[in-house]
Amino acid sequence: MNYFSSDFKLGILGGGQLGKMLLYNTRKFDIYTCVLEASDDAPCKIACDEFHLGNLMDFDAVYNFGKQVDVLTIEIENVNVDALEALEKEGVKVYPASKTLRTIQNKAKQKLFYVDNDLPTAPFSRFAYLSEIEDAIKNGGLELPFVWKAAQFGYDGNGVKVVRKLSDLDGLPKGECIAENLVPFKNELAVIVARNASGDIKTYPVVEMEFHPEANQVEYVICPARIDETVAKKAQEVALNVSKAFNHVGLLAVEMFQTQNDEILINEVAPRPHNSGHQTIEASYTSQFEQHLRAILDLPLGRTDSKVGGVMVNLVGAEGYTGNVVYQNIENIMEMDGVTPHVYGKKQTRPFRKMGHVTIVNEDLSQARKVAEDVKKTIKVISK
Amino acid sequence: MNYFSSDFKLGILGGGQLGKMLLYNTRKFDIYTCVLEASDDAPCKIACDEFHLGNLMDFDAVYNFGKQVDVLTIEIENVNVDALEALEKEGVKVYPASKTLRTIQNKAKQKLFYVDNDLPTAPFSRFAYLSEIEDAIKNGGLELPFVWKAAQFGYDGNGVKVVRKLSDLDGLPKGECIAENLVPFKNELAVIVARNASGDIKTYPVVEMEFHPEANQVEYVICPARIDETVAKKAQEVALNVSKAFNHVGLLAVEMFQTQNDEILINEVAPRPHNSGHQTIEASYTSQFEQHLRAILDLPLGRTDSKVGGVMVNLVGAEGYTGNVVYQNIENIMEMDGVTPHVYGKKQTRPFRKMGHVTIVNEDLSQARKVAEDVKKTIKVISK
Repeated sequence: MNYFSSDFKLGILGGGQLGKMLLYNTRKFDIYTCVLEASDDAPCKIACDEFHLGNLMDFDAVYNFGKQVDVLTIEIENVNVDALEALEKEGVKVYPASKTLRTIQNKAKQKLFYVDNDLPTAPFSRFAYLSEIEDAIKNGGLELPFVWKAAQFGYDGNGVKVVRKLSDLDGLPKGECIAENLVPFKNELAVIVARNASGDIKTYPVVEMEFHPEANQVEYVICPARIDETVAKKAQEVALNVSKAFNHVGLLAVEMFQTQNDEILINEVAPRPHNSGHQTIEASYTSQFEQHLRAILDLPLGRTDSKVGGVMVNLVGAEGYTGNVVYQNIENIMEMDGVTPHVYGKKQTRPFRKMGHVTIVNEDLSQARKVAEDVKKTIKVISK
Repeated sequence: MNYFSSDFKLGILGGGQLGKMLLYNTRKFDIYTCVLEASDDAPCKIACDEFHLGNLMDFDAVYNFGKQVDVLTIEIENVNVDALEALEKEGVKVYPASKTLRTIQNKAKQKLFYVDNDLPTAPFSRFAYLSEIEDAIKNGGLELPFVWKAAQFGYDGNGVKVVRKLSDLDGLPKGECIAENLVPFKNELAVIVARNASGDIKTYPVVEMEFHPEANQVEYVICPARIDETVAKKAQEVALNVSKAFNHVGLLAVEMFQTQNDEILINEVAPRPHNSGHQTIEASYTSQFEQHLRAILDLPLGRTDSKVGGVMVNLVGAEGYTGNVVYQNIENIMEMDGVTPHVYGKKQTRPFRKMGHVTIVNEDLSQARKVAEDVKKTIKVISK
């Protein structure tokens, strides 16, 4: 198929910041792109060829949208998978596949998938209802502490809680969940794997993530991770195996723990461009967004190595501010060495909402890391 | 002024490929952007916030558009300068200034400007009419060979001709022109200078240009130029002086000749992002398009040095093909090392029309240059 012609249409489910950054690349390649999104003032509103309003969880909205495109991809996992399955049967190329999304959307299924495929992950138990967890603790079938995770629709730290005492369960959703062993780890790592429809496969360098202790959101992403070469190789191998096990087409971001004794355990995956790969825009030979396009259009994959060291800082809404967003001191961070701000274009800020990110690149990674701290101290996402 | 708010509006005159690449960056910074352009299927049609149809040479079209924005810039020089002057008087920030554009639009004025400001350029004579050239040759006031240049509206090799015998003048436009000494040169070089409204100024590395012998269009741009450090410094100094002489705000691309005895002579300038800076997107810490935005919005300038070596190949329409464009073998070049194609999105190709460009980056510049040759041999812009 000739992707570089107006006969071809690419569809994206979701119109947020990931879609927006993907659109820079559909524009670069002049690929005709349609976006389905529920919000009329989403970041993808402009820069696509067609913007369609519709609920991503609605069968008809997704199905009718998908029938108009040749290749369909996502920028968010929470979409109607039945519609994707119907579209696949009718010949639309859907990446990631509906089967993969169904597995990933449910954390219990996702964990079972790792076990079934001999992929390393922390031990866990599945529970149909929260109340079963209480019973299990009481009768000695489950030990404190553990990590509770809602099976459905966890995103950005929602749906995850460390449970140290029984009362920590109070107020949690009542539905299906898992209890995962609390793994003491040295590092949280991530590897993005790209695989195209022909099966060509490449990994990006391992990145290291530092989380904000309260918001449970990534604060810094550091590329490459400052870890031993052997650990890095192991992490990349695990990530490759996950992509292959899913027979995945497109990007797969694999988040992992490096344990105290240098084991690698899979935490979770995202079958799309990911927050842990934003620094690739400035630091890598091929940005994750261009790579995702190359993969789903079955084009040759680009180089995944880095030109320079990169650090990414998320710009999240400051606590205590809700309303029309203001990026305080953005001019000041632009004075710093190797700094590029990305403003997602969401009109309203609220505490911990992802409003943008900043990339800091430098031939010397430790210098980039220093500047990143200055960036973090200087810029503030508030409201007016 | 807060550029990162929806109260601010940036206007761009022209909706071609340069505007399109500028829009990647207005989107990245979420800067509200309006485009004025005569063609309804121009590359900038999407990705701006407002697309206005209008003739760039029409006073009313430019004036009425400019009244709606806070800062006005261009992606092409051929715009109505009287309208810009009127807008400046009414407080709109116009970069480049109308005065600068008036000088640059007329090649005779541009050359006189260099002379008046002690800036090095090839000797020349100005003629009000082509017929005066013939007279001058006949009465010995002008010697063959020389370079004829139309004073008005030269672009991409149009309006320039080497005159070796009298009959070479046949068929040339009758109006104002210059006759410039034919300078034997080693290299054609270019330097992009960025200067913001506060007067901060930076130069990009010197690039080297290879021209297509027939089309007189750039075939390869090589960054950095493979020249002596002393020559490079001289070229950067000349370029800085040109920007300062114009009191320029924004990017100024300065094209120069390196003569046989290593003199630097200014050929011509473009007061905007330029073909000689496309490789900055992939090769530099700050792309020329982001830098132009930083400059005209009076933000701090970004780093201008390179992460890696870069070579740029223009994708121009092949001879013998006119019609709906096809990028033959584009998949094959994407397999090559460090290759990124940029497809401008023009629907119709014709011989030598600029339809896109390809950037090749590599830590080893000579390797990038090799791949660039393969790219050039492989891809062909034809019609179906």
